[in-house]
Amino acid sequence: MKRSLKPGTMLYPLPAVLVTGGDMEHSTVMTAAWTGIVNSDPPMTYVSVRPGRYSYGIIKAAGEFVINLTTAAMAEQVDYAGCVSGRKEDKFEKLGFVKEPGEVVKAPMIAQCPVSLECRVTEAKELGSHTMFLAEIVRVHADESLFDKNDRICLEKAGLLAYIHGGYLPLGTRKLGTFGYSVMKPKTQKKKAAQSRKMSLMKAKNKEHKKKDTVFTGKKTLVSK
Amino acid sequence: MKRSLKPGTMLYPLPAVLVTGGDMEHSTVMTAAWTGIVNSDPPMTYVSVRPGRYSYGIIKAAGEFVINLTTAAMAEQVDYAGCVSGRKEDKFEKLGFVKEPGEVVKAPMIAQCPVSLECRVTEAKELGSHTMFLAEIVRVHADESLFDKNDRICLEKAGLLAYIHGGYLPLGTRKLGTFGYSVMKPKTQKKKAAQSRKMSLMKAKNKEHKKKDTVFTGKKTLVSK
Repeated sequence: MKRSLKPGTMLYPLPAVLVTGGDMEHSTVMTAAWTGIVNSDPPMTYVSVRPGRYSYGIIKAAGEFVINLTTAAMAEQVDYAGCVSGRKEDKFEKLGFVKEPGEVVKAPMIAQCPVSLECRVTEAKELGSHTMFLAEIVRVHADESLFDKNDRICLEKAGLLAYIHGGYLPLGTRKLGTFGYSVMKPKTQKKKAAQSRKMSLMKAKNKEHKKKDTVFTGKKTLVSK
Repeated sequence: MKRSLKPGTMLYPLPAVLVTGGDMEHSTVMTAAWTGIVNSDPPMTYVSVRPGRYSYGIIKAAGEFVINLTTAAMAEQVDYAGCVSGRKEDKFEKLGFVKEPGEVVKAPMIAQCPVSLECRVTEAKELGSHTMFLAEIVRVHADESLFDKNDRICLEKAGLLAYIHGGYLPLGTRKLGTFGYSVMKPKTQKKKAAQSRKMSLMKAKNKEHKKKDTVFTGKKTLVSK
């Protein structure tokens, strides 16, 4: 049974991202949840910003920004970057964010964030309280630790942060399923399960090797052979 | 250390929602993650849909749709609704989704979903692979079970479903913090903590009462007084 409520922005979970603007020297960072994907080909995103925000003018003038995904471990920093204005202090310094140069845009990436998206504004759309900066994603940077042996990104390893209705939540670490799992043929399911078992075995063997290596390198006397 | 990748839609976590269209009799339902909030006042959202999708024509013609938030328990149904076309079968029937009428738009809400947003399209923007339906949220419906004693929505109770890069993840249940907690004055923190303790005590007392009630109603002989 549902209760009827007046219109509001009750659409969650959303990503709590850090949006950076400016350049490597003079940079701005703000937290945003009013962001998402609007198109696959070309890959496009948006971030909606109140005109009163310090970042607004900087993003509007440059026509560029970077979206940095955040982790549950960064929740307090993310909250701070959403509450305090860049007019008052250098939030990079305050929060210990390390700047990394992008490849395409001038705005810095945040080294501590697991994924950064370089974005170029295609349109600034005034909607009322916010201006939606529609943008093309022109380059993606993902932390090396997120890749598996087949060079596939396992984003569930990142421990991403979600924003829901006034609060921050961590994501679970275990996938409930991959896209298409509800309609997968039994044959494909079996094949995937076999692949997964093979990978687990390989992983276990590698761990074993690593252990042996460690013992061998560290304390030679402990190795019998 | 980050690896540089070609442009892609690597922005997560996103909500895995069920978008309904049509009316109570002839309805369509599809899964979408290309959705989010674009404006706070008036509350506005969007959903980006490929023109080839069955729902596309129905939403475009009606200029209305409903966004239904989903839970981790519904992951398989959500996946199915994103893989199979409404041209092939009635997914409401197949998935056991119960329709509820909205108040403003004709598209049905899904009873099993914890939150439904009635939306009215303001613009259809062709971006390439997808058309972004920008829309005003004209009414919100939230399940009674999500409200606390002070009639505040506790969305973390819903067990919402997130979509990340080809897979479904549950959300954690414990808030890492509420918006603004990183800059909260110690006085306010203390006040909030006291309120929280009071609420917990009240809850515990209520539980105690309920337990007694149950015993009293069910097995009178067990109550000594």
